Amino acid sequence: MNVSHPAVHPVGVPPALGGHAVPPRMRMRVRMEYLVFQGMPLPGTLGGLVLRLGQFCSALIAFSVMLSVRDFSVTAFCYLVAATVLQCLWSLAMAVIDVYALLVKRSLRNPLLVSIFVVGDGVTATLTFAAACASAGVIVLIGNDIAMCKDNPCANYEAAIIMAFLSWFMVSISFILTFWLLATL
Amino acid sequence: MNVSHPAVHPVGVPPALGGHAVPPRMRMRVRMEYLVFQGMPLPGTLGGLVLRLGQFCSALIAFSVMLSVRDFSVTAFCYLVAATVLQCLWSLAMAVIDVYALLVKRSLRNPLLVSIFVVGDGVTATLTFAAACASAGVIVLIGNDIAMCKDNPCANYEAAIIMAFLSWFMVSISFILTFWLLATL
Repeated sequence: MNVSHPAVHPVGVPPALGGHAVPPRMRMRVRMEYLVFQGMPLPGTLGGLVLRLGQFCSALIAFSVMLSVRDFSVTAFCYLVAATVLQCLWSLAMAVIDVYALLVKRSLRNPLLVSIFVVGDGVTATLTFAAACASAGVIVLIGNDIAMCKDNPCANYEAAIIMAFLSWFMVSISFILTFWLLATL
Repeated sequence: MNVSHPAVHPVGVPPALGGHAVPPRMRMRVRMEYLVFQGMPLPGTLGGLVLRLGQFCSALIAFSVMLSVRDFSVTAFCYLVAATVLQCLWSLAMAVIDVYALLVKRSLRNPLLVSIFVVGDGVTATLTFAAACASAGVIVLIGNDIAMCKDNPCANYEAAIIMAFLSWFMVSISFILTFWLLATL
């Protein structure tokens, strides 16, 4: 029931095998896993919870700013609203799971569970990034190329886009760490 | 010198260890590595070369179509041209490395080399996807929201964006596979 580090177990054993080709790769793996798993924000850890809350807050701010503008005539901005809502829901759900894991001191290093985290993180990160990029393309067009920022609340849009990018960046960290964890489980 | 499969070696050994906690995870790893490494388009394989050529060709088509329009007034489209050029160069370089590896029958499963592949794939995939999304946001704005496709070659832009997305999709496959390979090396 305690938070174990299963992926580290197999690498402690090989020196007894006497295989001449194994040690360098094993040392590499030990070093990599040590780097990745020591104090990293993985699912079920305090760092993971903080990262999830960061994703949730930045996506929520992006959503709130977009909603405050109340302009839904541009498709890219509507998509950004939808993507930030999805990101909020996903990050909140993951934060709840992290709180549960921390409270009952349960490990979340189950291959099926980690696979779901990886797919969810990958999909939401891609959608949030796509929405932020599309909105950024439109804002650069409005602001720089046709210079119509006088008629539009460009600063608000830019703030929302920056928060969406920040959320994407944090989800990407989660994705890369959980993907690495899945590969080494 | 021959193309070896080093990552599979450690997993064939554990049954001799007699550890009671290891087998389920090891079976999982064997299954995962079997699924990933059997006939997958990894660096230094024929499948990898075909994937690289696919990335290169789709990025080249996107670049050519964008260049044929000769309209560089929109920042997002200029960014798409730059991103597709970078994607072409990266995929071509990787294809050349794959051809070299196939010709001299050399394995590319070196941790440092695979790390470079992962970083390169990750960066170019992100840049290509960002450019494609930004351009898509602008095209949807021009085509749907303000309906100005009569004055702009929207079909050409759309074709270029679709090819850029296709290139991104193929680079993502390379990224995910090489990242998995790096984690299990």
